[in-house]
Amino acid sequence: MNVIEALNWRYAAKQMNGNKVPQDKLDNILEAIRLSASSIGLQPYTILNIENPELREKLQVAANNQPQITQSSNLLVFAAWTEVTEEKVDKYMSDIAVTRGIKVNDLAGFKQMAMGVANMPGDHSVWTAKQAYIALGTALIAAAEQEVDATPMEGFNGEMIDEILGLKAQGLKSVVLLPLGYRDEEKDMLSKAKKVRRSRKELVLDLV
Amino acid sequence: MNVIEALNWRYAAKQMNGNKVPQDKLDNILEAIRLSASSIGLQPYTILNIENPELREKLQVAANNQPQITQSSNLLVFAAWTEVTEEKVDKYMSDIAVTRGIKVNDLAGFKQMAMGVANMPGDHSVWTAKQAYIALGTALIAAAEQEVDATPMEGFNGEMIDEILGLKAQGLKSVVLLPLGYRDEEKDMLSKAKKVRRSRKELVLDLV
Repeated sequence: MNVIEALNWRYAAKQMNGNKVPQDKLDNILEAIRLSASSIGLQPYTILNIENPELREKLQVAANNQPQITQSSNLLVFAAWTEVTEEKVDKYMSDIAVTRGIKVNDLAGFKQMAMGVANMPGDHSVWTAKQAYIALGTALIAAAEQEVDATPMEGFNGEMIDEILGLKAQGLKSVVLLPLGYRDEEKDMLSKAKKVRRSRKELVLDLV
Repeated sequence: MNVIEALNWRYAAKQMNGNKVPQDKLDNILEAIRLSASSIGLQPYTILNIENPELREKLQVAANNQPQITQSSNLLVFAAWTEVTEEKVDKYMSDIAVTRGIKVNDLAGFKQMAMGVANMPGDHSVWTAKQAYIALGTALIAAAEQEVDATPMEGFNGEMIDEILGLKAQGLKSVVLLPLGYRDEEKDMLSKAKKVRRSRKELVLDLV
């Protein structure tokens, strides 16, 4: 399935059937997230992969009781860093140096650039959340390619979710949920509905 | 090329060679953006597809003179809505009704949900920009699948870009730039560099 086919296949399933996503497909989706682009390559987020049924029941209450939270096979929580610290930037510089066989000192200019992010005034999670959304876009295509359904959810009580998962103490903040599983074609009225998108003419402005 | 291969192939090219992206590949990337997921399917953004060389020269000055702005074949500007209005929500409801052959009145519950977004306090562009980043993630994979390079850019003067493109009057705000073109393997030191990503163990927390 190519990208266009995957995008046409997917939709945000409102009812899932409880079937399990095989480990190889789950691994593929998580690997796509891992390889996802992010600004300066910082990946300022952690992905929680939640299978535990009791934990998902608790989270469901904090997510308007949306059924896919427990009908899915795995619930991914995209948790963005609340702060980009020098320590985190240094860890990244060290990772680059090790991977590319260069010296950390050779990355001084790049570190300075990355520190521009760390020194941003205001709430860093506005920026880190946007990076997580690139990974979300990546995950949606990877899931569809595997014919795994994925329903992005923003409608949840972030403070409750963060409390249940102990995210604050880890410097994290839940920004979007992504249940992975399989659509229930009989119960989900939307499973046969036509996709609605603005036309290219409405969406794209060509300045030739 | 599958999604994992596409993600491994891609990187953010720092130098491009000026070669033109063929129309069919460009169309494919724009179609992927058009089909991209967004919260409640609202697509709260416009994509500017800029080929005009003089215009790109002007924009380059507002983007730290990054060379890919003019070395690319096309510059995409992801411009997010500054406000989600009832008028825009109604247009969307009308699109759904027409596409699915139903009555707008049947969408009253869904409209109410969408109006929850329109009635959000604060700056809507924090939310609309995140939706644009899902489309950005989509575009990056679609481009890589076509072996087209794409370099997301956040380092620009948004007010200047918005002024040059007259975005404010259109209720839009530039949130990310994406030059599309071809890497210059000789000039770009990073074209041969290993990709740096945190390990799965570092990135993903499994709660089984």
